[in-house]
Amino acid sequence: MNSKAPYLLTPGPLTTSLSVKQAMLKDWGSWDGEFNDMTAQICQRLLSVAGAEQTHVCVPVQGSGTFAVEAVLGTLIDPDSYTLVLMNGAYGQRVGEILEYLKRPYMVLDKGDYVPPRGFEVAQLLESNPKIEQVVLIHCETSSGILNPLEEIAAVCAQAGVRLILDSMSAFGAVPVNMADLPCAALISSANKCFEGVPGFGFALIERQWLEGAQGRCHSLSLDLYEQWRHMENSGKWRYTPPTHVIAAFLQALKEHQAEGGVQGRLARYTRNRDRLVAGMRALGFQTLLDDEWLSPIITTFLSPSSESFDFTQFYALIKQKGFVIYPGKLTVADSFRIGCIGQLFDEQIDAVLLAVSHACMQMGMTVPVPAPNLLSPQLKTA
Amino acid sequence: MNSKAPYLLTPGPLTTSLSVKQAMLKDWGSWDGEFNDMTAQICQRLLSVAGAEQTHVCVPVQGSGTFAVEAVLGTLIDPDSYTLVLMNGAYGQRVGEILEYLKRPYMVLDKGDYVPPRGFEVAQLLESNPKIEQVVLIHCETSSGILNPLEEIAAVCAQAGVRLILDSMSAFGAVPVNMADLPCAALISSANKCFEGVPGFGFALIERQWLEGAQGRCHSLSLDLYEQWRHMENSGKWRYTPPTHVIAAFLQALKEHQAEGGVQGRLARYTRNRDRLVAGMRALGFQTLLDDEWLSPIITTFLSPSSESFDFTQFYALIKQKGFVIYPGKLTVADSFRIGCIGQLFDEQIDAVLLAVSHACMQMGMTVPVPAPNLLSPQLKTA
Repeated sequence: MNSKAPYLLTPGPLTTSLSVKQAMLKDWGSWDGEFNDMTAQICQRLLSVAGAEQTHVCVPVQGSGTFAVEAVLGTLIDPDSYTLVLMNGAYGQRVGEILEYLKRPYMVLDKGDYVPPRGFEVAQLLESNPKIEQVVLIHCETSSGILNPLEEIAAVCAQAGVRLILDSMSAFGAVPVNMADLPCAALISSANKCFEGVPGFGFALIERQWLEGAQGRCHSLSLDLYEQWRHMENSGKWRYTPPTHVIAAFLQALKEHQAEGGVQGRLARYTRNRDRLVAGMRALGFQTLLDDEWLSPIITTFLSPSSESFDFTQFYALIKQKGFVIYPGKLTVADSFRIGCIGQLFDEQIDAVLLAVSHACMQMGMTVPVPAPNLLSPQLKTA
Repeated sequence: MNSKAPYLLTPGPLTTSLSVKQAMLKDWGSWDGEFNDMTAQICQRLLSVAGAEQTHVCVPVQGSGTFAVEAVLGTLIDPDSYTLVLMNGAYGQRVGEILEYLKRPYMVLDKGDYVPPRGFEVAQLLESNPKIEQVVLIHCETSSGILNPLEEIAAVCAQAGVRLILDSMSAFGAVPVNMADLPCAALISSANKCFEGVPGFGFALIERQWLEGAQGRCHSLSLDLYEQWRHMENSGKWRYTPPTHVIAAFLQALKEHQAEGGVQGRLARYTRNRDRLVAGMRALGFQTLLDDEWLSPIITTFLSPSSESFDFTQFYALIKQKGFVIYPGKLTVADSFRIGCIGQLFDEQIDAVLLAVSHACMQMGMTVPVPAPNLLSPQLKTA
C-alpha cells in the first residue's frame, strides 16, 4: 500500500490489495490467447460463486456498473413487456431512468429513502398487474445501506412466474446468492465492489435461455450483451477492446476472494467491520439511519449530529487528513453521511477511523462522549 | 517492464511504460477532490493538444473506443438529419452499424478495403445530397493501416457547411490535429492508443455549441455525453463510477507524451519505427498492402507471402516466442497480417521483431532473402 493513499470507506471504488494492483503491471494483447484465458477463467469463477454453472452464462461488459445494468435491461427486456421496479433509493431510481431512455413500459413500487419493499407488496402488485413480466430489485441499496429482502421477493416472483432481475452491484461476492435455490433470471454486478477489484467493467449472470432469445433487442451496439456473448462464445475474445489491466487485476482479486474463504469468508470480515464500526460510532453518540435488522455489511448511513458545530465538509477533510475517505449522504429526508465496510479493511482500519471521527468531532468543537477505551489504546496506528 | 511480457505490435492495447502502469498502484476515491483534479487536468491537456480550448469541450466516457463513438453519434446527431459515412475498412463499417442500432438515416461512400475516400468524391456527394448534415471520417483506418486524407475532406465539409465527425481513435496524439485551423465538430479517441495509456475509457472533443443543444437526444443513459458533460461541469465528477486507475495512468501517459515533445515528438518516433519496420520487412521479401503515400505511422499491413510454407498461426506463435505480439489481418481481398509501430517501441524492438520474422520464416521452411546486415549484428538483443 502506497503510504500516501487514504483508505476508502466508500461503496466502491474501494481499497484493493497491493497484489491486485500489481497484477496491472503488465500489458496484455486483447487478441492474444493468454488474455482470452483470463476472461474465461473469470466468467467460470463468477458462475461458480453463484452456483449458476448449469443454468446461466456470464457476460462481462466494459464501463461502470450502470453500463452493465443498462446493458441487461436493454438486451433482455422484450420491448412490449412490463417491468416492475422496486425502488428505495438512488439505484432503484436509476433503473427507472434507464427504462425511460429505453422507452420500455414500467411500474414502480417506491418505498422512499430507506424502507424495504416486502414480498407481500410485490405479490399484490403482480396479482393485480398480470402484464408484468419482470421485477427489478436492488440487492443492497447503498443510498441508505439497506440490504433488501431478496429471498422473500424472489419467492413471490417465482410463484407468479415472473422473472427477477437482481442488481447485486454492491452485494455479490459478500452476500450469499445461490442460483440453484434462488429463482433469479439475471444478476448484475461489477469488478470494484465486494470482489475487491478495480473499476472498469461490470458483468451479468443471465439465464442461458433468456439470453438465447434476445437477439436484436438491444438499443445500443456497445451494450448489446447478446452480441457480446455470441462473440465471446465463438472467438473467446471481447467484442470491443476490453480494459485489459482491470481484467488482470480482477482475476487476481477473484483468487484472493477464494483464498479468504469465498463469500462466507468475505461476509464474515465485512460483518465484523460493520459491527465494530456501528458499535464504535454509537459509543461516540452517532445514530444509524436504519434499525439493526436492515443494516447491510456493505455501508452504513449515520445521521448527521444535530450539533450546530457539525459541518460535513470540515468533518470529511479532518478525517481525510488521518488517511480515510468517507462518503456523503444521499438521502432526501435527513442530513447524513456514510461509512463503508468493504475493501481491504480490517480491525485496525476500523479502529483508526473511529479515532479519526472522535478527533474530528472534538476539533469542530462538538461535545462527544468519552471515547471507548480501545480508541485510546496506544498501540493503535492511523493508516 | 516485466521480463515475461511480450511487446505488443498491435493497434492498441499497446505496450505502455512502466511508469504509466505504476500510476495504477494507488486506489482513488471517485468522489474525492484529488481524483476530480486528475480528470480536469486530463481534459485540459487533451483540448490543448488539439488547440481546441476556445471552441470545444472534452467529455470522457467509460468503455472502449467504440463506446465513445456510439456516445458521440447518439448524443449529437439530430435524429432527423442525414449522415454520410466514409468507409474503407472495419471502423467505418462499425459507424454504419451504430447508426443502424440508432435508427438514424445515413448514406455511405464505401471504398472497400484500403482505398482512401477523396475530397472531390465527398464534395460531389454533399452537393447532390443537401440533406446531409454531418460526415463521419475514420482518421487512421487500422484495418489496412491507411491514413485517410483528413485535410481535403475537412475542407470540403467546411465549404458545404456540413459538420465533420472525426474518429481519430488510432491517430490523435501522434498525427497533428489543430482544431483552430481544421473545421471539425467532434473528434473521438481513446486512452490506449497514441497517448500510450491503458484501455478503459474514450473521450470526445466536441464543439461547445453543438453539445449545448444536444440535451435529450441520446438513446442511452450511460452513453449520454450531454448529461456526462453537465454533471462534470456542475460537480467535477464523472456521472457514474470511472475507471479510476486507468485515469491515473492516463494522466501519467499525457505527461510522458508532453515530455517526448507532444504530437511532433511522438510522430517522429512512430514514423521512424514505421520506416525501419517497412524497410526491414521489404528486405525480407514482404510487400506492404499500401503504396508509401498512404502508409500511416500507426500500423502497417503486409501481404502474406505466397509460399505454401507460410502459415499465419505458426508465424504468430514463433514470433510470440521471441517476445512480440503481432496482429492478424482484417482484409476481405487478400491474406495479410499487421504490425504496429505505436506504444513503447524503439529501434531495438523494431530490429528484434525483424529478426524474429526472419527466424520464423526460416523455421517454417520458407526461402527468405539474406537478412540485412543490421539484423545479424551481435549487439541486437530480443526483448
